[in-house]
This record gives sequence, C-alpha cells and structure tokens, in this order.
Amino acid sequence: MRIPNHIGIIPDGNRRWAVDQGMTKEKGYNKGLNPGLELFKLCEEVGIKEITYYGFTVDNTKRPKFQRLAFTKACIDAVNMLSKENADLLVLGNTESDMFPKALLPFALKRQRFGTGGIKVNFLVNYGWQWDLKDYFLEGENKSDLLSTIKSRDISRVDMIIRWGGRRRLSGFLPLQSVYSDFYIIDEYWPDFKSEHLYNALEWYNNQDITLGG
Amino acid sequence: MRIPNHIGIIPDGNRRWAVDQGMTKEKGYNKGLNPGLELFKLCEEVGIKEITYYGFTVDNTKRPKFQRLAFTKACIDAVNMLSKENADLLVLGNTESDMFPKALLPFALKRQRFGTGGIKVNFLVNYGWQWDLKDYFLEGENKSDLLSTIKSRDISRVDMIIRWGGRRRLSGFLPLQSVYSDFYIIDEYWPDFKSEHLYNALEWYNNQDITLGG
Repeated sequence: MRIPNHIGIIPDGNRRWAVDQGMTKEKGYNKGLNPGLELFKLCEEVGIKEITYYGFTVDNTKRPKFQRLAFTKACIDAVNMLSKENADLLVLGNTESDMFPKALLPFALKRQRFGTGGIKVNFLVNYGWQWDLKDYFLEGENKSDLLSTIKSRDISRVDMIIRWGGRRRLSGFLPLQSVYSDFYIIDEYWPDFKSEHLYNALEWYNNQDITLGG
Repeated sequence: MRIPNHIGIIPDGNRRWAVDQGMTKEKGYNKGLNPGLELFKLCEEVGIKEITYYGFTVDNTKRPKFQRLAFTKACIDAVNMLSKENADLLVLGNTESDMFPKALLPFALKRQRFGTGGIKVNFLVNYGWQWDLKDYFLEGENKSDLLSTIKSRDISRVDMIIRWGGRRRLSGFLPLQSVYSDFYIIDEYWPDFKSEHLYNALEWYNNQDITLGG
C-alpha cells in the first residue's frame, strides 16, 4: 500500500458538534484533543512521516472572544500532549501578534525533538496564508527553490489533506504546499473521529494516481 | 438562490474518456470543445459573472508530443469559439515559452471585449502556479493588496471550482484565488458534460456557508 508521506489535517466541525450536543459552540474545541492524539498514534503505526494540524488561523481570531479563548486553549493543550510523544515538533504561525499564545512561543522558534523524535509534526497556530507568503521572492528571486522564502518553508509538500465536518475547501491551509494535494472529506465532525476515517482515507489515497500536475 | 460570482472549471478526464471509447488518448481533447461552449452559455443564463477554464499547464507540456499538440489545438479552438460569444476574454499563461501557442498571443496581451461583452472569461494556457507567483511581493511589498503583483491579478477570487473526472485536487490551479474556494467534484469525464452537472454544483454551492476563513 502506498502511504502518503505527509498528511494535512483540517479538524473542522467542533462548534457544530457542540451545538448538536446541546452545548454552547466553544465547548466543542476541547473534544478535539483526544482525536488529535489518537490520529497521531495511528499515523505512527502506519508509517506516515509528517503531519500538519490546522490549529487556528488569523481569520479565525475574528470570532467571538469566548470561542477564541476556547480554541486557543485547545491548541495549547494539544501541543503539550503531542510534546509527550516521540515527534519532531514545530508550531508555526504569526508570533508577533497578541493572538499567538505565549505558552506556545517556545515551540515556535525552531523544530524540536521530543522523546526519541520520529514523525515531523507541524501545528499551525495563528497561521495566515498571507502572512506565510509575505516574503515570497522578496529575498529569494534568484533562488532555484521557489518555496525557500516562505515562512512555512520547513513544511514539505502535502500529499493528502483530510478534512472533517463536510466542508470541501482549504480555508487558507498552506496554499503552496497544497497545489498537488489530494483532498479527502469526511462528513462527520472532528470530535467524532474514528480510526476508520484515517484508514478509509489511506485506502482512497492508495487508489489515486499521483502525477504532481504532469 | 445564491449564485457564485466566479467559477473555476477543471475539465479533466479527456484522455480516460478516449481510452474508454477505444481511441488513443489524444483524441479526447477535441471532445471537450462543445462542453466548454455549452457550459459558457449556461453560465450566461444563470448569471455567473466570471469563469476560469483550466486549459493546460506548464506541467502538462511534459506529456508525449502527440498529446501536447492535441491539447494545444483544443485550447486554440476553444478560445476561438468563445471569442464569437459575448465575453470579456483573457488568455493567461507564460507567453515567453515555445509551448505557448502563437495563435493565442493576441488574446494574451490584455482582456478584450468580444460581441457586447459580458462574462469575464479567463482561459489558462501554458499556466504555471510558480510562474504566476514569481513576482509576488518583489515589487509589491508595501502594497496593501497582497494579490496585486501576481501575474493572474486580473482574475478574481474563485468561489467554486468544479472538476470533472473524479480527481479531488487543484493540480496547481490559481493557488491564491483558490484559498477559500469550495470544490465540487464530478466523477464523469469532461467530454460527458451535462447541464445537470452545473445545476447540481450550483445547488450544492447554494447550501454551503461562505465564511472566507472566518
């Protein structure tokens, strides 16, 4: 079976899940923590080399304050959980804004090895696609690697993006690493994550031809 | 009904269609011409304001020569057909390469009005996402509009991308205009285009919430 090298995770639907359960919207984010850890462990097992989690974006911070505080806390907790695993971890986002949680600053300086290392884990926090691309070619016009000047240059091409919650869009997720990505959409909300979701996505990916635009 | 302002068309599956019909692969491209015109007329009827057709890419030109000649001819024919309609037409792609068909150079200088004008039609020919973004911020670092320096700056944000042929990926299609686009995938091949495909896509789009990342 052909396993993707790098998968992108868009864990959407936390708020809709909470509303369905009769809770207020911001209660949903906390329910995404265990799924995130479970997914990480499954990826370790099947031999995926790199995972990028879409935490929250600059766009998202315009939401009501209660929600913002809740998804920020969930991201802090998620990164702390992942730092107890064997992983090479990087938090990436605009650290110069007040919206970037101070607790995650130590993870954002450079990729760090936790445990024995292993999977590259990228966690996007206060990420913005415009922020990411701002220096594109400003310093790098003559560089042969077109991607070497973007802020996410330490994140490789994404082979498959899996999105929960039924929406079929990128919502600003790493535009340059996603140009050739295959998208797999799961209608269930992220807090309802099941291992079958990943297995089904991997099986589907195995049946795609990979042409990289050719 | 909420009609998208701008739709992107990825007319994939011409070669697979040809093979299914017992033809050689390159025979499929010509069968995409009438679908393209039919789609244009339907878009006029429903009030879509802008269409971008994914003709061929720099990546595609690495394919066998017979195929390259066939898809190049199909793009020339398609643009000629569309220029007999009421449309504001622009061909966009790397005109400095030999792969860009000379017959389409007059369409690539600037957007031109044909007939009484109307829908903006963008036709990507020898397009490459790296080519498109190459000047990003090189001249424009202090411009507030981040998109003003890309070569496709005259193409607006894409609301919905419809792809035929079952693949679920962008394949390099306008990365910056696509960051918030909704993707609608049709399993049938492009030469089997039916008006229902567009109607179903529009109905689906009408049921999406549009947040632009918020």
